[in-house]
Amino acid sequence: MAENTKPYVIGVDLGGTKILAGVFDEKLTCLGRAKSSTKAQRGAPAVIERVARCVQDAIDECDLTTKQIRALGLGAPGAVEPESGRVLFAPNLVWEDVPLKKELEKRLDIPVFVENDCNIQTLGVWDKELRGKPRHLVGIFIGTGIGAGLILEGKPFAGFNRTAGEIGHMILEVGGPKCGCGNRGCFEAVASRTALFRKIQAGVKDGHKTLLTDLLGGDLKDLRSGDLRKAIKRGDKFVEKVVEEAAEYIGIAVANVINLLNPEVVVLGGGLLDALEDEMLAIIIETAHDNAMQGTDKGIEIIASRLGDDAGITGGAVLARRETK
Amino acid sequence: MAENTKPYVIGVDLGGTKILAGVFDEKLTCLGRAKSSTKAQRGAPAVIERVARCVQDAIDECDLTTKQIRALGLGAPGAVEPESGRVLFAPNLVWEDVPLKKELEKRLDIPVFVENDCNIQTLGVWDKELRGKPRHLVGIFIGTGIGAGLILEGKPFAGFNRTAGEIGHMILEVGGPKCGCGNRGCFEAVASRTALFRKIQAGVKDGHKTLLTDLLGGDLKDLRSGDLRKAIKRGDKFVEKVVEEAAEYIGIAVANVINLLNPEVVVLGGGLLDALEDEMLAIIIETAHDNAMQGTDKGIEIIASRLGDDAGITGGAVLARRETK
Repeated sequence: MAENTKPYVIGVDLGGTKILAGVFDEKLTCLGRAKSSTKAQRGAPAVIERVARCVQDAIDECDLTTKQIRALGLGAPGAVEPESGRVLFAPNLVWEDVPLKKELEKRLDIPVFVENDCNIQTLGVWDKELRGKPRHLVGIFIGTGIGAGLILEGKPFAGFNRTAGEIGHMILEVGGPKCGCGNRGCFEAVASRTALFRKIQAGVKDGHKTLLTDLLGGDLKDLRSGDLRKAIKRGDKFVEKVVEEAAEYIGIAVANVINLLNPEVVVLGGGLLDALEDEMLAIIIETAHDNAMQGTDKGIEIIASRLGDDAGITGGAVLARRETK
Repeated sequence: MAENTKPYVIGVDLGGTKILAGVFDEKLTCLGRAKSSTKAQRGAPAVIERVARCVQDAIDECDLTTKQIRALGLGAPGAVEPESGRVLFAPNLVWEDVPLKKELEKRLDIPVFVENDCNIQTLGVWDKELRGKPRHLVGIFIGTGIGAGLILEGKPFAGFNRTAGEIGHMILEVGGPKCGCGNRGCFEAVASRTALFRKIQAGVKDGHKTLLTDLLGGDLKDLRSGDLRKAIKRGDKFVEKVVEEAAEYIGIAVANVINLLNPEVVVLGGGLLDALEDEMLAIIIETAHDNAMQGTDKGIEIIASRLGDDAGITGGAVLARRETK
């Protein structure tokens, strides 16, 4: 199979709420994409069917056919066994041991490669944005939840049970706020979008004044990350303080990563960070350097990714390309 | 140089207070050892001279000569550049950029290899005690301070500035007790020997009753880890509680490591752990599994090393052997 007859690869970002598929050329330029809701509650076979349809939509959008696609790389939100392409467990999808690679290949007739979503986002940032330069990279993605991907010695690192990078449940504050996982003081419980929204809603109940209630009503039901940015820009001191505190926690988590793993670059992404980069990044960087042990953080870069929502599909495309080189 | 004419290797453990040197045969059996105080305050050249003398004492103790020694591996308490054998910085020795390998080779006429002390202890445990089996191993050493060494993908991992494994300054409790590094809530500030002794001394001042004051007098000046064990065995509830709390913090730190790195084995060592293994290990294991994210800790072993004080010299011997194979 000559490479130039099949120059295109596909990246898929399979999340708990939405599926994103993108078609990429050899230079990793995205030619077109498609989006769909996940409908996880319908069960694994239905979700896999939706992924296949989303992929076909993206191919069709680019006026291509599956015959021109070399391979597909997919990021799944959970523990993945890349060799078999099985999703071992994915709490957000309520999946346990799903043979995703096999099922998708049957439907699409394209070679499929599967990885954990944060690993694949980190791979995308590493390869496309950083040109594969850093030998050790940690990607931290802050959205509804918090996860990380690791590139060590120039290669993705997954660990014994393939769950390395579960930084969202690193405990930063023994006895701190309760986390969805059942423990207390996890990174995710103090700095995810969920944690921030909870803090703001609790603050409003306690009588704190915020412009957000003018924007959205007293129950703040449809609160989004972008609303926090708007409120801060209009001078909302309460929201500013909550966001700054979250940025400090993120900085401490970054310091912990620097102390333990000493990566060359820490890259930050995810929906919350993307929306509030101007408000958070400088505080994160300062706090991280303040809390890293002296001498360990010399020359280490802490940056925000420019890939935004495309990190997942880009990483999928990178994986597909790497596996079929 | 035929291997069988020089079958012996030397391991050296260079600490802030003492130097330990051991001669090992091909089966990694220790044939003899020597010990000396470090006298760090005399400066690097004097300390290097003391290391060389300690090594010669160990060789002499075994009725050997330096001509029969193939190589020497040394663990230093700080950041090390293994290629050049330079100690980049070592706070406990007050060293900055010391060409240790070059200086020792000049004095001993044996090839010298230098690594960070926690890395070398982990290497010793991995090779001799665990027969090199785990693909991913984290060694955590709890004594006056706390440090870790990482074996990832079957190889020692050091990171960008060669300081990976600085787990003692991982923040577990934002705003917690002050640490020697200037930050608050570091692992070392809540679970090292120093932290435990400080807590006990503060408790005594606050009027807590403990058998330790009967043993050592009211100021507890000469307190040692073994005294804590003795007090607990005699029913000292205050000391028992302090030690149990420290074990819980260690368990949380182990959970953080499992979440982030997902190693196959976590091995615990160091003076405090060695002295209080019966009192601490079960609590550490239980807390670690309670706090690791569900699904991440399956099949992961958390064990105590059997090498005790010999972990450093054994690791040095392993390094010397690996480098001259």
